Amino acid sequence: MSAIEDLVTELSRLPTIGKKSALRLTYHLLKQPPEQSRRLAEVLATLTDRVRMCERCFNLTEDDLCTVCRDPRRDAATICVVEEASDIAAVERMGEYRGVYHVLGGRLSPLDGIGPDELTVAALVARVRAGGIREVIVATNPKLEGEATALYVQEQLSPHDVLVSRIALGMPVGGDLEYADGVTIAQAIASRRLMR
Amino acid sequence: MSAIEDLVTELSRLPTIGKKSALRLTYHLLKQPPEQSRRLAEVLATLTDRVRMCERCFNLTEDDLCTVCRDPRRDAATICVVEEASDIAAVERMGEYRGVYHVLGGRLSPLDGIGPDELTVAALVARVRAGGIREVIVATNPKLEGEATALYVQEQLSPHDVLVSRIALGMPVGGDLEYADGVTIAQAIASRRLMR
Repeated sequence: MSAIEDLVTELSRLPTIGKKSALRLTYHLLKQPPEQSRRLAEVLATLTDRVRMCERCFNLTEDDLCTVCRDPRRDAATICVVEEASDIAAVERMGEYRGVYHVLGGRLSPLDGIGPDELTVAALVARVRAGGIREVIVATNPKLEGEATALYVQEQLSPHDVLVSRIALGMPVGGDLEYADGVTIAQAIASRRLMR
Repeated sequence: MSAIEDLVTELSRLPTIGKKSALRLTYHLLKQPPEQSRRLAEVLATLTDRVRMCERCFNLTEDDLCTVCRDPRRDAATICVVEEASDIAAVERMGEYRGVYHVLGGRLSPLDGIGPDELTVAALVARVRAGGIREVIVATNPKLEGEATALYVQEQLSPHDVLVSRIALGMPVGGDLEYADGVTIAQAIASRRLMR
């Protein structure tokens, strides 16, 4: 295979990049000064060398501990459990959450061969057992597998002295009843709260 | 103006139908047997003659009371307050809500000249004052104006002996943290609930 074909093949392995886009990207790089491809190659090469998982929470990091775990201003007694490291970015976007995290590395999915052992639940239990944790907020995605995973996490933590909570389900802020799905509306009505 | 131009003008007044679509629809009708246009014309003509507002809840109806208000199996002691009659369809989609409704006819929006008098809040208060209402669930849309309207409804009902609740805010069921907006995630974390 030619160098062009090699790159097209590798690029089209990436999500959202098809064969056509891959070819377009390749030709684009060929038209640029060669330094650009070389820089991209270097950055890619160091990516997997440098980035690894936080020893404590399994967030991505270039050090032993991630930036959140190292930050003394974070509330280390509250752990927000998410499926993927990319979910941390979503929670951090508002900057309101002050606790720390625990990345499960996925969700229970027997059909895809992902059982409890493929997730970092045991490490989470160990963190709780080590003490100093007041609350674990389970923020797995509100889908079938995410809910099953939340229940499993809750079960595993139930023998331990820690609050386990689940993020709220309801209408997204700024949403429209007319465009919301029926299950979400039913949930928003079921979980209604008294005003004052 | 020609008959074609007239129809194109009227059609393009409708939401989501631009001049081009209007022209396409017009030519489509001209290619069909003339009965089709005639039937459409009749249905349109009777629409506004027949459909009016429910005397009790301001839902759309062809009778004095709407189908929900007339249904003896509905729980008449619970009123779900929505902005528009079209929101009722959204709540009914799941078939889980068993109470009745009250359509405000919009939301408070001073900039558009919509104040309390343009909404049916007084009629809602009258329904509550007439007795037999246990709870009012305010299901206005979770946007700035919908929240302001919810607060106004709550204030107007506070002197009366009735529970006033608000639909829950949080992650939509089936949603993804990664694609949710920050305000919604912050709300879902703030409104988290203990698991068991």
